[in-house]
Amino acid sequence: MKAFIEPIGRLINKLTKLPGVGAKTAQRYAYSIIDMSDSEVEELANAILSAKREVRYCEICGNFSEEEICPICKTRKSNIICVVKEPKDVIAIEKSDKFNGTYHVLHGTINPLENIGPNDIRIKELLGRLSNGDVEEIILATNPDVEGEATAMYIAKIVKPLGIKVTRLAHGIAVGTDLEYADIGSLSRAIIDRREI
Amino acid sequence: MKAFIEPIGRLINKLTKLPGVGAKTAQRYAYSIIDMSDSEVEELANAILSAKREVRYCEICGNFSEEEICPICKTRKSNIICVVKEPKDVIAIEKSDKFNGTYHVLHGTINPLENIGPNDIRIKELLGRLSNGDVEEIILATNPDVEGEATAMYIAKIVKPLGIKVTRLAHGIAVGTDLEYADIGSLSRAIIDRREI
Repeated sequence: MKAFIEPIGRLINKLTKLPGVGAKTAQRYAYSIIDMSDSEVEELANAILSAKREVRYCEICGNFSEEEICPICKTRKSNIICVVKEPKDVIAIEKSDKFNGTYHVLHGTINPLENIGPNDIRIKELLGRLSNGDVEEIILATNPDVEGEATAMYIAKIVKPLGIKVTRLAHGIAVGTDLEYADIGSLSRAIIDRREI
Repeated sequence: MKAFIEPIGRLINKLTKLPGVGAKTAQRYAYSIIDMSDSEVEELANAILSAKREVRYCEICGNFSEEEICPICKTRKSNIICVVKEPKDVIAIEKSDKFNGTYHVLHGTINPLENIGPNDIRIKELLGRLSNGDVEEIILATNPDVEGEATAMYIAKIVKPLGIKVTRLAHGIAVGTDLEYADIGSLSRAIIDRREI
């Protein structure tokens, strides 16, 4: 006997397209969906469809937006741009409440192994934003991995000659971590980037 | 600045209705949905809607079915009924390939703390199936927890006087587990239920 009847099998199959969802988890989700009320199921399906339909990318910064220009670009006048890899990084920085400037989402990082070069991410668009001379600083907030560092270096090399200050997010021992529990990478970084007090 | 634009916030909210999905996971799922192609998103939403619409319960056994009577009840003639708590238990037993009879899904177990009594689960329907005298054995395959045991005992007490053999799935040390690693519950059960060889 086939394990699942067709509509359940199909739903499980589609749910495994979500990141990190295997067959077991998809099965749990599928059963819970069948157990939901009709209206709950409809709301879930509609939320999926309308998120895909209504979400576009801001023409300036590349972040998620409902309109041509996102609320941050529309309301904040700033001469500091924070450059990030993905829209979710904007959320993370906004949550810190420590940055009040605008963003630039690259939608990727340079990665020769996957054939992603500087022209495949939104670097051109970033340079376009710098051309009017208003921007005084860009903060390179790509991740501290190989691709993130390479991308930061690449952008720094182009932007510095324009007379714009280029900074990088500080990396080091996470706040609240004891020295003995700090991972080697963070500790090395903390030593190299030590600051005078 | 609000963390999420409205369509994304709404999608995240709906996704947290899935079992075990918190805000972080829902956010990951939402972003991956926005990154999918239009057709993939549509297929996902349709799979959700049609699973809810097309899946009903078999009128005999209570398992998921596309039609009035499920394929198992339709094709298997058996005088052994395996009684389980939920449809997913049917899948688990079918995968073992050791049972070729029919099922009866209770859709719950007796649980006084949550006000679920014998009349709230499909026990009446089970007794109805026993009335024609064809059934020779019922296997009580509810879980070995308090509610599962209580439900099994309750059903056994009613069914035994009808002259029908009542059995319970064997519980004990999981196959492949060393004695020293067996949990106390399984080990106690294995000793109590020891069999002569």
